[in-house]
Amino acid sequence: MHEFIELLGLPERELVPGFNARLIHTGKVTIAHVQARKGSVLPAHKHFHEQVTNVINGELEMTVGGETKICTPGMSVTIPSNVLHSARAVTDCYLIDVFYPEREDYK
Amino acid sequence: MHEFIELLGLPERELVPGFNARLIHTGKVTIAHVQARKGSVLPAHKHFHEQVTNVINGELEMTVGGETKICTPGMSVTIPSNVLHSARAVTDCYLIDVFYPEREDYK
Repeated sequence: MHEFIELLGLPERELVPGFNARLIHTGKVTIAHVQARKGSVLPAHKHFHEQVTNVINGELEMTVGGETKICTPGMSVTIPSNVLHSARAVTDCYLIDVFYPEREDYK
Repeated sequence: MHEFIELLGLPERELVPGFNARLIHTGKVTIAHVQARKGSVLPAHKHFHEQVTNVINGELEMTVGGETKICTPGMSVTIPSNVLHSARAVTDCYLIDVFYPEREDYK
């Protein structure tokens, strides 16, 4: 069944301190609408899900596969399965992360 | 291999007149960064790919499965496989559409 979703009506989940997400799970993909607080750090990690991070607002320093860049609105980052990545919010940020397959661990 | 993508560096593809997309294909999903021009209409259609439309800017009138709503930033719409949907840009809009599986027809 289709659904019109008001994101503010979804529970907020803390991924790590300072990174909070509202999550849409379709059964195939997970879409995480993430608010990151300036200065917060997502430590290096990896997962078998592939990920695409889309920066909507703010500046996010990302390190992926050993390469570091400051990511700003209009930038997206593709992270294949099992590639090590980390992030630091240079400013408050709004990000949309897309995961395939679904993040069962975020349910 | 991971990739840091500047969306403005990607070619723009006209989906229908007034709806233009920059597309990221991962092999599993397609992420369409769509700019829609005020007044433009995406006629009713369906496809086997499931879709999640995320409204970043502007107002988009969407009809999905016979239900019509005005969608604004902070709203997302899940469209299962083969559900009829259409859209009209009430204002200029920026949308991020996520498709699973990949949209081979958009390559």
